[in-house]
Amino acid sequence: MTDESFPYVFHYGAGEPRIRARLGEPLCVFTEDCFSGKLVAVDGKPREVAPFPRVNPLTGPIAIEGVRDGDTLAIHLVSLKPARDWGVSTVSPNFGALSGTRNNPNLQPEQAETVWIWRVGLDGMLTTTTTNGREISAPLRPFHGSLGVAPPHGEVRLSVVPDSFGGNLDIPDLGAGATLYLRANVDEAMVYIGDGHFAQGDGELAGTAVEGALNTELIFATCGDGEDMLWPRLETDTEIAVIGCARPLEDAVRIAAHGLVHWVSRLCGLEPGDAHQLVSQNCRLRIGNLVNPLYTVAAFIDKKRLPRAISDFEDTHQMLRSASKSSTQ
Amino acid sequence: MTDESFPYVFHYGAGEPRIRARLGEPLCVFTEDCFSGKLVAVDGKPREVAPFPRVNPLTGPIAIEGVRDGDTLAIHLVSLKPARDWGVSTVSPNFGALSGTRNNPNLQPEQAETVWIWRVGLDGMLTTTTTNGREISAPLRPFHGSLGVAPPHGEVRLSVVPDSFGGNLDIPDLGAGATLYLRANVDEAMVYIGDGHFAQGDGELAGTAVEGALNTELIFATCGDGEDMLWPRLETDTEIAVIGCARPLEDAVRIAAHGLVHWVSRLCGLEPGDAHQLVSQNCRLRIGNLVNPLYTVAAFIDKKRLPRAISDFEDTHQMLRSASKSSTQ
Amino acid sequence: MTDESFPYVFHYGAGEPRIRARLGEPLCVFTEDCFSGKLVAVDGKPREVAPFPRVNPLTGPIAIEGVRDGDTLAIHLVSLKPARDWGVSTVSPNFGALSGTRNNPNLQPEQAETVWIWRVGLDGMLTTTTTNGREISAPLRPFHGSLGVAPPHGEVRLSVVPDSFGGNLDIPDLGAGATLYLRANVDEAMVYIGDGHFAQGDGELAGTAVEGALNTELIFATCGDGEDMLWPRLETDTEIAVIGCARPLEDAVRIAAHGLVHWVSRLCGLEPGDAHQLVSQNCRLRIGNLVNPLYTVAAFIDKKRLPRAISDFEDTHQMLRSASKSSTQ
Amino acid sequence: MTDESFPYVFHYGAGEPRIRARLGEPLCVFTEDCFSGKLVAVDGKPREVAPFPRVNPLTGPIAIEGVRDGDTLAIHLVSLKPARDWGVSTVSPNFGALSGTRNNPNLQPEQAETVWIWRVGLDGMLTTTTTNGREISAPLRPFHGSLGVAPPHGEVRLSVVPDSFGGNLDIPDLGAGATLYLRANVDEAMVYIGDGHFAQGDGELAGTAVEGALNTELIFATCGDGEDMLWPRLETDTEIAVIGCARPLEDAVRIAAHGLVHWVSRLCGLEPGDAHQLVSQNCRLRIGNLVNPLYTVAAFIDKKRLPRAISDFEDTHQMLRSASKSSTQ
Repeated sequence: MTDESFPYVFHYGAGEPRIRARLGEPLCVFTEDCFSGKLVAVDGKPREVAPFPRVNPLTGPIAIEGVRDGDTLAIHLVSLKPARDWGVSTVSPNFGALSGTRNNPNLQPEQAETVWIWRVGLDGMLTTTTTNGREISAPLRPFHGSLGVAPPHGEVRLSVVPDSFGGNLDIPDLGAGATLYLRANVDEAMVYIGDGHFAQGDGELAGTAVEGALNTELIFATCGDGEDMLWPRLETDTEIAVIGCARPLEDAVRIAAHGLVHWVSRLCGLEPGDAHQLVSQNCRLRIGNLVNPLYTVAAFIDKKRLPRAISDFEDTHQMLRSASKSSTQ
Repeated sequence: MTDESFPYVFHYGAGEPRIRARLGEPLCVFTEDCFSGKLVAVDGKPREVAPFPRVNPLTGPIAIEGVRDGDTLAIHLVSLKPARDWGVSTVSPNFGALSGTRNNPNLQPEQAETVWIWRVGLDGMLTTTTTNGREISAPLRPFHGSLGVAPPHGEVRLSVVPDSFGGNLDIPDLGAGATLYLRANVDEAMVYIGDGHFAQGDGELAGTAVEGALNTELIFATCGDGEDMLWPRLETDTEIAVIGCARPLEDAVRIAAHGLVHWVSRLCGLEPGDAHQLVSQNCRLRIGNLVNPLYTVAAFIDKKRLPRAISDFEDTHQMLRSASKSSTQ
Repeated sequence: MTDESFPYVFHYGAGEPRIRARLGEPLCVFTEDCFSGKLVAVDGKPREVAPFPRVNPLTGPIAIEGVRDGDTLAIHLVSLKPARDWGVSTVSPNFGALSGTRNNPNLQPEQAETVWIWRVGLDGMLTTTTTNGREISAPLRPFHGSLGVAPPHGEVRLSVVPDSFGGNLDIPDLGAGATLYLRANVDEAMVYIGDGHFAQGDGELAGTAVEGALNTELIFATCGDGEDMLWPRLETDTEIAVIGCARPLEDAVRIAAHGLVHWVSRLCGLEPGDAHQLVSQNCRLRIGNLVNPLYTVAAFIDKKRLPRAISDFEDTHQMLRSASKSSTQ
Repeated sequence: MTDESFPYVFHYGAGEPRIRARLGEPLCVFTEDCFSGKLVAVDGKPREVAPFPRVNPLTGPIAIEGVRDGDTLAIHLVSLKPARDWGVSTVSPNFGALSGTRNNPNLQPEQAETVWIWRVGLDGMLTTTTTNGREISAPLRPFHGSLGVAPPHGEVRLSVVPDSFGGNLDIPDLGAGATLYLRANVDEAMVYIGDGHFAQGDGELAGTAVEGALNTELIFATCGDGEDMLWPRLETDTEIAVIGCARPLEDAVRIAAHGLVHWVSRLCGLEPGDAHQLVSQNCRLRIGNLVNPLYTVAAFIDKKRLPRAISDFEDTHQMLRSASKSSTQ
């Protein structure tokens, strides 16, 4: 399965480190698009140029020096820049939220395979041309569909999988300025990153976003607050969130909301019942994907709704924010 | 089941009209909270004061003169004002997204019944006091959890049910300035409205929002564009949406997204495949409720992403917008 | 919606009684097939001869004299005889467990509408001819897909719906010799019966069974043991069962299994934890349908596994068994 | 994670072969129970003696000489004999189909951990004593909850996982006389077997069966008919089946039924539409588990319903049947 000349991997949890990084020191990486950059025209064949499971090539493993199994690793996304002036999206037979798939097959005729090439405009818009010559658009909002660490308990998972170790989450909030918190399951954590999306609607319904290569700057820290952290957590300047990965979709919501209730309870010194109420009246639920082996949902709450300043996590996020700002000046 | 002295109903599709309205003429209604205004203190007993199925009392039926079976009815929410300076939320045993329920029972001990009373502040915030004396808050953003018409095919449904006829949708976008489009299933449509929410997070996880009585102004129109409309549609000044009602939650997404793809296709003259792509890269999915007999999801797209001006529906929305503005000046 | 000359109804909970019956006295009824007997050849058009929602015509309402709201009604199926020497099955676009549907739509091309006519053989087999001239078969095992009472709380539901009131359960065990227990929600219960199936695999995957008209003998009783009965119960000479109706399918299992655990606990004087264990190591789960508005599952346990003789329900079943045997001699 | 002195493994797809076998030659193996034989009394602590993920120890990897990546491997279960005169079952907090779990958490208090020890009687019955001194029973019907090969695409999965490679299927039909067909994903296939169940109801609702150590005789073959085989297939003297693994449960049914339709179509020379009809009117659906990371369902059809003799698979099953009979005489 491995090819030494190919600088990417297709698994979480396998392979020797190809990159080493240190806590607090910015790292710049290039990530290929989900088709390994091989789908370049509307007459291209996605399943020929990137046959399953050779989709979502990941940059990594990135060994983070000093991180120990069990630590909470904070991964801050300093900046994400499109590495090309075009992106690509597709519809494929037997894939997507509005199609039968391997996991919920049907007996209907399949959809045709179709490709759209999107241009990155100077005005911050992506545009493409429809089959009948019209122009459609989406705002450029780059984020990483995939960001994870080696899975727990010695599992090795394909790069299309999201789970408690992060991975193919497809949550659009994972762009510049966000911090993702993951439990390290091995020493040095082994970080994997890729699947750049120039734009994506909630749910990634068609099965692909506007896929594109990225140049990304990252910075890492550890923080002490993850003792009870079973699922990925996310922080921006304005919100905190917990991410759940499951099928059916309501179970992904339950994981995310349950995790957020317990996190808010501890951060703010509220009884779980009161934290439940605070979350229930204020949360924002965002559906990341409806097409991966597990669906993903993030449950957010505005920091202004938390009845006092939050502790370790926010300190870490602010520290990384500051470190990244000084590094980019 | 009926009580002539009680001015509300607990079903969609039953009863004689209690209110009559005309197309294009504003109508002001009062709607009770989901507990019929009887849950007024933290030591109140929700299941005693409002035993199932006497929850979600509805104002109606409102007969809309001139509407015919099969018409598309546009219901525009001109304004919603809290009718009291307090709202109420609860957690009940065997109910809510983070509990076993009648529909997904378990053998664990049940949660205790708990009540929170929220104060409506002059600063536009709702606040309540926790069991350990802290204050928690949520922004005041009133909307109607329930707005529907008589169901199709002669069914009669409880007021807690959402479906193709609207009903207990619990979509927070159904506030002032929004237009809901529903297919009339009988002559004069028979509109039902209630279940005011002063605030609610996505999913209505705890099973209740901050529930409150409202004084609401409505205005009605019909529009010609609903021929293929199987599910509720929603419009604001900036977005259009389709609402799906189903379990599991992914099926509610599928209904909403599928409906939006076909609507956008027809509105904009795009092939369904291109409309699918446009929606997939731009849609916002909002989870309304995870606690009603059917879950609800609205799939939105920003009007700016539609490659040309939209027709009948937008005309109707603008007309109602204008009519309502002139009426409120 | 009603047609006085048409002797069937398409709703549970609507209409005046058309038949009256007495407790303990056998009643013979004729039930039409789900297409009202109008689909008689392979070139017939199901959606023209029986357009939704005019499918599943029901014989009823049958008023059961002496039954009161809240009673547990036992409906014993004495015998079921095909009323014709042929049955019919179909595949329709946008319907069935292996197709997108109204409730989980997709963007694939639809399946074609197809009809099979099955002959009832003297050898107890049903046979039909395939598109390429082969013969395929299924054993004749008649049962009623639909058997229910007026719904609780004043709802009126279409004849395609299964729920706590019974209805379109599509559980193949509902054949001769079975007793179905339902809570009466109105005085005289109002029983509805129809949707005869000459054969059906688990799940009714294609969306129709081998549909056929039946001549059926029924007998009714009340029994005192249903105080805590929220969902339909089923009894045969060898097994007892609880039926759950829900989506997703696992929730139908949970309802059925949870109901069976509590029933067994009370019948046998076991702690709920021990009853859970007994059920978990012994239960048979049967999937009735995967195509109706709610899916159905029955959770069975062999009476031999119950640590002592069961009481009221079994007495009722045995009494009806005996009564029916004397009536048919 | 590995312990050289411990003769079992907890992953599919990891580790060097510990046993070698040849096609057509019987192999006898001992398999430990899911708690590694350490839970021996009702006051034992399941989560202490077998903390996750050290549950379901597997005997293997068993390298099957001569099998190549891509071959269809037939694994025939010749005989299964309890290796001890007792088995054990449990209920654990946060686990089981009638409890919130890691994947569908709730805020209710958790269930207590409880253990039952079952005696294997000479009469073929298992019996245990309840908390209030009663005796409950289940028939002894041994099968392997877990039987699989190395996963495809280089994944490594925990022993609690079922998927296309087989694994923790918990299908009670996997007992003596059954043949399981799996696609080999690596040369020599690497077979893993364990999780003996002395009895289990459908769904394994409590989260454990009556768990017990087994002495099992196996025999292996390859067969040429698996070209289109994406999911496990099962054969007994009377039935063939396809097994689906997914959440929600309806998707496991869809996989299994869709696979059976296509298999029957090809085996019998029927158009897919006719095979769909044949399966729909005749299939038996069995729910294996509702507690593992993926739920499992097997879709069966009686061989007598197949309009002509089936080919390669049946030949293989018969050959293994014969080989095993001669070996056991």
